[in-house]
Amino acid sequence: MHNYAEQYKTELLDRVIPFWINHSKDNRYGGYFTCLTQKGEVFDTDKFMWLQGREVWLFSMMYNCVEKKQEWLDMSLHGANFMKKYGMDNSGNWYFSLTQEGKPLVQPYNIFSDCFAAMAFSELYKATGDNEHKKLAVETYGNILKRKDNPKGNYSKIYPGTRPLKNFSLPMILCNLSLIMEDVLGHEQVNKTISPLVKEVMEVFYDKKSGLILENVTQEGNFSDSFEGRLLNPGHTNEAMWFMMDLAVRINDNLLVEKCIDILLRSTENGWDKKYGGIFYFLDIKGYPAQQLEWDQKLWWVHIETLIAMAKAYRLTGNESCKKWFELIHEYTWSHFRDPEYPEWFGYLNREGRPLLTLKGGKWKGCFHVPRGLYEIWKIIE
Amino acid sequence: MHNYAEQYKTELLDRVIPFWINHSKDNRYGGYFTCLTQKGEVFDTDKFMWLQGREVWLFSMMYNCVEKKQEWLDMSLHGANFMKKYGMDNSGNWYFSLTQEGKPLVQPYNIFSDCFAAMAFSELYKATGDNEHKKLAVETYGNILKRKDNPKGNYSKIYPGTRPLKNFSLPMILCNLSLIMEDVLGHEQVNKTISPLVKEVMEVFYDKKSGLILENVTQEGNFSDSFEGRLLNPGHTNEAMWFMMDLAVRINDNLLVEKCIDILLRSTENGWDKKYGGIFYFLDIKGYPAQQLEWDQKLWWVHIETLIAMAKAYRLTGNESCKKWFELIHEYTWSHFRDPEYPEWFGYLNREGRPLLTLKGGKWKGCFHVPRGLYEIWKIIE
Repeated sequence: MHNYAEQYKTELLDRVIPFWINHSKDNRYGGYFTCLTQKGEVFDTDKFMWLQGREVWLFSMMYNCVEKKQEWLDMSLHGANFMKKYGMDNSGNWYFSLTQEGKPLVQPYNIFSDCFAAMAFSELYKATGDNEHKKLAVETYGNILKRKDNPKGNYSKIYPGTRPLKNFSLPMILCNLSLIMEDVLGHEQVNKTISPLVKEVMEVFYDKKSGLILENVTQEGNFSDSFEGRLLNPGHTNEAMWFMMDLAVRINDNLLVEKCIDILLRSTENGWDKKYGGIFYFLDIKGYPAQQLEWDQKLWWVHIETLIAMAKAYRLTGNESCKKWFELIHEYTWSHFRDPEYPEWFGYLNREGRPLLTLKGGKWKGCFHVPRGLYEIWKIIE
Repeated sequence: MHNYAEQYKTELLDRVIPFWINHSKDNRYGGYFTCLTQKGEVFDTDKFMWLQGREVWLFSMMYNCVEKKQEWLDMSLHGANFMKKYGMDNSGNWYFSLTQEGKPLVQPYNIFSDCFAAMAFSELYKATGDNEHKKLAVETYGNILKRKDNPKGNYSKIYPGTRPLKNFSLPMILCNLSLIMEDVLGHEQVNKTISPLVKEVMEVFYDKKSGLILENVTQEGNFSDSFEGRLLNPGHTNEAMWFMMDLAVRINDNLLVEKCIDILLRSTENGWDKKYGGIFYFLDIKGYPAQQLEWDQKLWWVHIETLIAMAKAYRLTGNESCKKWFELIHEYTWSHFRDPEYPEWFGYLNREGRPLLTLKGGKWKGCFHVPRGLYEIWKIIE
């Protein structure tokens, strides 16, 4: 698969990274614009904290892992300084969004803002060695652990006790976060978190009957026959499987790698749109109508995360099915999501594969999945 | 347009009403199922209070306005008794959803549950004369007025003060509600509410520059250049215009009728998909990408409410453009939303007009827009 490496590297360094440097920097108020049209023009100035955190992380990661370019570190610090100044409430919870100038707009109801802030400041600390960055990362991580059993807090609309469900996103993201934060948390702390997380992802959310991962399960880890309980999110599963393989490599657990590949292949097979190609966004495990009207759309991150997982799986085991899937999804992804006219990729396609929105960034798409995926796959294949 | 009347009447009485009687009644626990497949099979048993309220209203309305059929009144009471028993918290706020047995699932964060409960019990009171029904309607209405400036209460995630916006839905629905509730509120009370509501809908949310209605405006009634502020919802506008025409008829205001028609035509022209036909769900007034991934879908209620508005406008004024639009949308609606195989209509089509979900009812589609629209148009044309 060697010729792919150059393709992913060139796209990252020549098209995607320059796009964000040229278009996302707010020179007036600090922080990043993420709502960018197909050409890169700013169409909305609100600042969504989880996308700020992701971009800070991305540029620090490029600095730490690719090349010690001052421009990349400056770009990361540009966002980090804005975050530090305006991003948190008095208890250290990260707001969901701010105005361009940094006034809070939406309350800290979403713990993923905190996850990406912790990720951002950990990675930045590796670059700067600045203890203030470390402190922010550690404190935010502590806050996440405190909030993790009730992440939405007072903003949860669920009536307590009737049908308490656990959601897959947080344990999934903690797998990735704990490895990224190893430098600031210490090996000991990371070792302690790994085995309960592996259990959570690979047993609690794993549905034995179907061999798939559920988005929501009961507190006891059982199937709930409800809209939430029936929900499948193949992109989430596949992303989690590469996080899990990274953990497996760290603890040298080949059996865990095999389990991940087993789930990854089943989830991709099940999520693949046999009619138009691409992977569905949401499915109902019983085949009932999903409540998400966007269920049949093809999203950039779903495909990129699956490519990372397939590439990693093939590199670790030489599994031929993973190679075949990589090639098929690579073909779909590059011919549908990549914009031949302007840099960066489309995020949202309709079922047939045509752009539904031509934006390059928005409220939920920032400088993250495309460059992280290009970097990961370049490095895996190289 | 006389031959249409029979078509709407037959569809209502022979196909749609029997569908809900046959499939939505939960004989075991009371209340209604609304999650029904294309054939009418129950695929989820959760009970969404605003859909319960809407179905109670619909069957009472049929009893009051079409024919004193005991079966229809019984059907309405069947839902009303369930609502009365399980639907409210201790302060008289209506939950968003309950389990099949009536245990609260989702808190009363959504004031539209209350709006449809008030509508349901008012209409039921007209049928039963039962003071308990009247009392519930009046108390719920009082509660809505108390909550109306902060309808989400503690569940609002908006940071106070930074960018406080007002939403169009509540004033819009109060226009319809106040007329429906005239019997329980009294003429005096209704007279008092009309003129501020007309002002709110026709001035505060009306954007002079575009001649369109905005979904969200600043507290002062100005345009906000934000995702929420730029949002257009043509179906909402068109539904509001027929509520407004009903008010205009009541207060004998021909100028108001003309204003409504002017907005209705502009909103429909602006919302019409010139490529595939049908009316878009959401648009951005500046033409930027909408944040709603379902923006280009074609929804049943958008088309049915527009048909009611066009029919009413034509009957009141003989406006030829309204007649042309009625015919065009009638053609689109009957050939795309009506299911020739099984009763009731599809709710969700993709941009090209093919069913995206084949359900006949779900979390947001119940026994309401299709039968109400069929009834309204039958009566308007007849």
